[in-house]
Amino acid sequence: MTQRFHPPLLKSAAEDPVARLVLETRTRTLDLVYGLPPEDLVVQSMDDASPGKWHLAHTTWFFETFILRPHATNYRQFDPNYAYLFNSYYVQLGARYARPQRGLVTRPTLDTVLAYRKHVDEALKQFLECGHRTGEIQALLELGCHHEMQHQELLLTDLLHALSFNPLQPAFRPTGPLPVRDPDSEPSWQEFPGGIFEIGHDGQGFAFDCEGPRHEVLVRPFKLASRPVNNHEWIEFIEAGGYRSPTLWLSDGWSTSQKEQWQAPLYWWQEDSIWWSFGMRGAQPVSLDAPVAHVSYYEADAYTRWSGKRLPLEAEWEIAVTDIPIDGNLMESENFRPRQSAVSAPLNQMYGDVWEWTASPFVPYPGYRPPEGAVGEYNGKFMCNQFVLRGGSCSTATAQLRPTYRNFFYPHQRWQFSGLRLADDG
Amino acid sequence: MTQRFHPPLLKSAAEDPVARLVLETRTRTLDLVYGLPPEDLVVQSMDDASPGKWHLAHTTWFFETFILRPHATNYRQFDPNYAYLFNSYYVQLGARYARPQRGLVTRPTLDTVLAYRKHVDEALKQFLECGHRTGEIQALLELGCHHEMQHQELLLTDLLHALSFNPLQPAFRPTGPLPVRDPDSEPSWQEFPGGIFEIGHDGQGFAFDCEGPRHEVLVRPFKLASRPVNNHEWIEFIEAGGYRSPTLWLSDGWSTSQKEQWQAPLYWWQEDSIWWSFGMRGAQPVSLDAPVAHVSYYEADAYTRWSGKRLPLEAEWEIAVTDIPIDGNLMESENFRPRQSAVSAPLNQMYGDVWEWTASPFVPYPGYRPPEGAVGEYNGKFMCNQFVLRGGSCSTATAQLRPTYRNFFYPHQRWQFSGLRLADDG
Amino acid sequence: MTQRFHPPLLKSAAEDPVARLVLETRTRTLDLVYGLPPEDLVVQSMDDASPGKWHLAHTTWFFETFILRPHATNYRQFDPNYAYLFNSYYVQLGARYARPQRGLVTRPTLDTVLAYRKHVDEALKQFLECGHRTGEIQALLELGCHHEMQHQELLLTDLLHALSFNPLQPAFRPTGPLPVRDPDSEPSWQEFPGGIFEIGHDGQGFAFDCEGPRHEVLVRPFKLASRPVNNHEWIEFIEAGGYRSPTLWLSDGWSTSQKEQWQAPLYWWQEDSIWWSFGMRGAQPVSLDAPVAHVSYYEADAYTRWSGKRLPLEAEWEIAVTDIPIDGNLMESENFRPRQSAVSAPLNQMYGDVWEWTASPFVPYPGYRPPEGAVGEYNGKFMCNQFVLRGGSCSTATAQLRPTYRNFFYPHQRWQFSGLRLADDG
Amino acid sequence: MTQRFHPPLLKSAAEDPVARLVLETRTRTLDLVYGLPPEDLVVQSMDDASPGKWHLAHTTWFFETFILRPHATNYRQFDPNYAYLFNSYYVQLGARYARPQRGLVTRPTLDTVLAYRKHVDEALKQFLECGHRTGEIQALLELGCHHEMQHQELLLTDLLHALSFNPLQPAFRPTGPLPVRDPDSEPSWQEFPGGIFEIGHDGQGFAFDCEGPRHEVLVRPFKLASRPVNNHEWIEFIEAGGYRSPTLWLSDGWSTSQKEQWQAPLYWWQEDSIWWSFGMRGAQPVSLDAPVAHVSYYEADAYTRWSGKRLPLEAEWEIAVTDIPIDGNLMESENFRPRQSAVSAPLNQMYGDVWEWTASPFVPYPGYRPPEGAVGEYNGKFMCNQFVLRGGSCSTATAQLRPTYRNFFYPHQRWQFSGLRLADDG
Repeated sequence: MTQRFHPPLLKSAAEDPVARLVLETRTRTLDLVYGLPPEDLVVQSMDDASPGKWHLAHTTWFFETFILRPHATNYRQFDPNYAYLFNSYYVQLGARYARPQRGLVTRPTLDTVLAYRKHVDEALKQFLECGHRTGEIQALLELGCHHEMQHQELLLTDLLHALSFNPLQPAFRPTGPLPVRDPDSEPSWQEFPGGIFEIGHDGQGFAFDCEGPRHEVLVRPFKLASRPVNNHEWIEFIEAGGYRSPTLWLSDGWSTSQKEQWQAPLYWWQEDSIWWSFGMRGAQPVSLDAPVAHVSYYEADAYTRWSGKRLPLEAEWEIAVTDIPIDGNLMESENFRPRQSAVSAPLNQMYGDVWEWTASPFVPYPGYRPPEGAVGEYNGKFMCNQFVLRGGSCSTATAQLRPTYRNFFYPHQRWQFSGLRLADDG
Repeated sequence: MTQRFHPPLLKSAAEDPVARLVLETRTRTLDLVYGLPPEDLVVQSMDDASPGKWHLAHTTWFFETFILRPHATNYRQFDPNYAYLFNSYYVQLGARYARPQRGLVTRPTLDTVLAYRKHVDEALKQFLECGHRTGEIQALLELGCHHEMQHQELLLTDLLHALSFNPLQPAFRPTGPLPVRDPDSEPSWQEFPGGIFEIGHDGQGFAFDCEGPRHEVLVRPFKLASRPVNNHEWIEFIEAGGYRSPTLWLSDGWSTSQKEQWQAPLYWWQEDSIWWSFGMRGAQPVSLDAPVAHVSYYEADAYTRWSGKRLPLEAEWEIAVTDIPIDGNLMESENFRPRQSAVSAPLNQMYGDVWEWTASPFVPYPGYRPPEGAVGEYNGKFMCNQFVLRGGSCSTATAQLRPTYRNFFYPHQRWQFSGLRLADDG
Repeated sequence: MTQRFHPPLLKSAAEDPVARLVLETRTRTLDLVYGLPPEDLVVQSMDDASPGKWHLAHTTWFFETFILRPHATNYRQFDPNYAYLFNSYYVQLGARYARPQRGLVTRPTLDTVLAYRKHVDEALKQFLECGHRTGEIQALLELGCHHEMQHQELLLTDLLHALSFNPLQPAFRPTGPLPVRDPDSEPSWQEFPGGIFEIGHDGQGFAFDCEGPRHEVLVRPFKLASRPVNNHEWIEFIEAGGYRSPTLWLSDGWSTSQKEQWQAPLYWWQEDSIWWSFGMRGAQPVSLDAPVAHVSYYEADAYTRWSGKRLPLEAEWEIAVTDIPIDGNLMESENFRPRQSAVSAPLNQMYGDVWEWTASPFVPYPGYRPPEGAVGEYNGKFMCNQFVLRGGSCSTATAQLRPTYRNFFYPHQRWQFSGLRLADDG
Repeated sequence: MTQRFHPPLLKSAAEDPVARLVLETRTRTLDLVYGLPPEDLVVQSMDDASPGKWHLAHTTWFFETFILRPHATNYRQFDPNYAYLFNSYYVQLGARYARPQRGLVTRPTLDTVLAYRKHVDEALKQFLECGHRTGEIQALLELGCHHEMQHQELLLTDLLHALSFNPLQPAFRPTGPLPVRDPDSEPSWQEFPGGIFEIGHDGQGFAFDCEGPRHEVLVRPFKLASRPVNNHEWIEFIEAGGYRSPTLWLSDGWSTSQKEQWQAPLYWWQEDSIWWSFGMRGAQPVSLDAPVAHVSYYEADAYTRWSGKRLPLEAEWEIAVTDIPIDGNLMESENFRPRQSAVSAPLNQMYGDVWEWTASPFVPYPGYRPPEGAVGEYNGKFMCNQFVLRGGSCSTATAQLRPTYRNFFYPHQRWQFSGLRLADDG
């Protein structure tokens, strides 16, 4: 990975993993936007997305608000206005500004936001160097980093969404297409016995609140496909009329697909019988043996009904991944697109490439209680109407992932690198 | 119950429970609309609702289409047009009629629809009397009855919704209010041990597809309140600012409550510090010790967060109800409104009064496969974005209920008699 | 005309034209709905329309409120609730009822509304018989009649709109189609010199406020076609791509036509290359030599651009009609559909058949001041965004029309019997 | 006026007024955006507005497409993609790009658009210098300039609208407030006799198609106020309940005002009983004796009803302005906000400060025919649903104005510098 911005290394970084995480995370965010014009970072292409500039500022505001202002002696606030500008929810300034759209806030400019980041990063560095930190502060620093890694991925997927509206089809990082090679084999199936298993986070090391408590689940024998569904298979689904057959779809899924006129994954179109897609590398022919991405839960579910299989439960996914190292086509690879897997393990690409939709609604684990305070309001209030995805994508930072990590999106959403892996009863 | 229409009793009815069910169900539907003017039965007050006239015809169309036309010799179809008029989905007649709203179809008139019912009922009676029926036909007859019982409840709740828009506040069945008595006691808590239990339908007798297969679940120790949350307690929630405190709500729930300006259950309003509600008996002061009804999942969920408890899982509800007989304030009582329970068993009002929201999303049970064919498309396609309710309401037919019965609605819906019972970890 | 209800004739009716107008108008309204089932009269198929039941009651409420209650001794109000139920704007009864939709008010039933009419009609008859009436009362009686005639036409067009959603295509008054004869001739052109003319109502006899004051206009020489554009010509416009050529359309018109997917007049569709339309007589092949109806201003305007002509100004229309008697295919003919004109005068069908769109926005005449009081709020507030139509249609009462009569609708509206006549510079 | 960019002066400019107009117009556009960050010029705050970057490119595209490519030998097109990117209507590139929002097109960046302008400006300069130009080319050059001047004003008002959503309230050109002086006098009334007058453009010199043909109008005696309605008077209207009195409003106006919750002109709010407004100079107290701006036609119309006067007809305005020179607080003053008039002529501020709503719908003049070809599609298709405004504003270029100039907007629009002047019958 080409390091475009070189962070001021701490003397103690080698022995201080939290400090290292902070500096690396803050630096990588800047790397991601390196060379982009301000125009790319100011627009907001839909309600679900935010401008890049806002991501840059909001993640900085987090460290300023929860670390520097309460805990760093003599910290000088960069600009008091940012408290409401870059909070996730704007404070009401009167009827007119009650719900401003983030994409309309052109100032502070990108340059000023970068100065804000520099101001906070320097204060963070001083803070990290000078001495002892309580456990609470360690936890907040880690939370700030994991929060920022989530926003790194959103920054990328939000930007892709915005660029996709440009008829000129500009690439985030231009490069040539992947080979349009036809995959030569069916996936194999890995079998797992049933029984009572433990899943969820046990509290050792960082995790988000919704990953715990660790608890027992009763699982029936099941099988998982050795790799995610690929684009070749998805084109077969399209050609078999998958997008025209209401009986394959959930009722809500069919309504959505009709209203939105879905005929293929997001960012796909057909020219002269070749399927193309728009991605971080620009417009390119669809790579047939890469995992399909940018499909909604509704599409993934319809595909499973067509194929006679089903989506895995999140417990099944977590059990299956127990002994698999966290590695793969992740953000650090700088591919920013799903690729074919060269490896042929029993289970491939469980991490990276595409987030895998599970059949599990995002609901609390038994005994879950949301933590107290503003920071604690993090995940519990979203435990409704969304489905869990597992495994990370080509735009997820490695350090963000754990076997217990639960991502979640609404079943109609497609702008993430979301795909699927088939499961079946054992 | 005053029998308003007297069905032609079959000679064999006493020994033929399916035939008895058919005749009783068909008759009760007519009883429900007895005396209503045609005007009440033609309107459709929202997309979720249908006109009473449509319910009367659609349930009839079901028997005509799946029993009489394929299986009754010499059956003469009443009107071929009804095949698309009273199917759940209209056949397209061209762009103009692609999606007619049911409330705009003024003809056939109520009189003609009643004639249609009579025509089909007489043919059904002949069919039921003359001899042997295959298992498949028995199953279809039962399905037709259970389908019609579901529509009986919808007919009532849809009508209530329509009448609620009338400034004159007409009552479906006028009568005096219930006593506005203050409940004198807290609910007690019934404890249940954890373990592995079986839930779901075992295939003996009628059930809908989504109730099976019967399967093992791992349950942790839990407690259930001895009765549903009542109106007195709900008013405390209102007065404590429940509808003004975003931190009590799911994120989607809060958006909905703000957009819809919820400040109390559906049909409630306040006059001179007295809470009133509109119901099947007209406008009446809220009966304090009756179970709260017409609350959404979002409101039920917010209430549990305020109370420090939680909603039960559907498995917990089903385990708890194992030995409780199916009895209570159900449709046959003809109250058409929730009432205080006089009994003081450990668990009261598990059946009847109000459907109880559970914390369980409506998803397939392990091993579930939707049945083949048009009839089989019944429930599977709704297994997304909805929550399970259990126990039936004051407008549910007794014969419709089983311990395994799973009702389901979207978390924002309020026009059913939906309430809640608190649960807690054991 | 078959008189279905026979009004109690006044002794003095022959010498009392206002009394005669009242009784005839009230009776004709009942004639119009004679034999219709209550179901037809309760539905509201769009915001622009009202249920027939509401028209019946609202016109009655007008006489009760402005004549009987203030001026008839001992008049007993039928039901005080009707004051807000059948006012054009509902009084707010609290948040829930702030904007009820008229189509949801199922009660009072049609029977009760007819009883209300009878109650008011009998009181009106007594009032008309017993004695002297002031000029103010005479004026109010006339206004009530002209108001009711407007609602007669709306009752018909609203009902047609509602019936059009029924896949069974029920006819208001079933009968056979008109001959599908091809018209044999082009219209001729009638020339008019320019100059200064007077238009507008001079205050003699009844007129609506917006018809005056009478004033001078400067008119340039112009020509009018001898008859309205007919269906044969409209089909030529369709076949020439009129609905697919944005350059023929106003910008707002094109957006509307695309959004609403207009491809022909309202109620038209094509089967096997034959154009059909739905009307008061049911579904019938389009009668080629009848005037086109149910076209919006946008469509009429596009047609003129295609034909190289223009729409007349309302002043031109009024000047041209000066010596033409008010006669034609009007409501009393009971055709309820436009027909070919047999006559061959220089100008034919200026009255009746279809309202003719003019190029004149509905704005106040010079010196116009709205009258004082509630009754006076009649037309002034609509003087924006609408266009004037002239001449009446097959559903307009003859007594309603005058040379100065200004009807007005929004340029996108099509549910009236609205057509056009071409004009050109002289 | 500080000239920020110095255009390459033509040798012949002094004797070549069209060349001078081109160079001055092109330069002024750049002056307007001088110093603005790219972020300000990429956003689109509503459908009615366009990003500044788009205005810069679209006006350039106009000269490239209609002058340089057809008429300049050896002209090299800057980028063929711009043909659809910066046309007013995007060519369809497939379903995805069918209706892109201009605010989502982040590239070409501002720098590239400025390079595009430079490329075209240099080619224009060469073209203007080298020789004879046909009348058609002269006309197109003039049209290009007048087109660009219209976009200059839109660029300013669109930018103001975008900045208004920023809680930080950034100023386009910061400076201190105007004095909050109370105006000391009522306006006087200037009387005009009735008669037949000529209005409209006679074809000498540049004008837009809709300004002609020149034609006779019959006008009744009338009066005009000596100055526009000022903010002091508008506050009186607010305090008299103007925004709460439905009887003052047109029906459509009242619906809009309720839906949009209007309580004052756009950009106004109240703090501690002081009225503030947001403008090109930032947030400032409302200057009491400056003309009111940012009011819709609906508000202007309601104000006249409250005041007992009326809006002028466009013919009245044009007759009154005959002998008044085109001067005032226009774009060249660089005030970018309406100001009090120091002068005390019989009619003041007819040009500049605020566009004045007239009572005249924007319809074609008698004998109007839209010109042929793409350029000619300019105004005719908007002749529906809009009202004429006259006189120019503080953001209108002087050279853009003529006595016959007709501006037009929808009656609900408020983001222009739109105000009003009272009229009355003579």
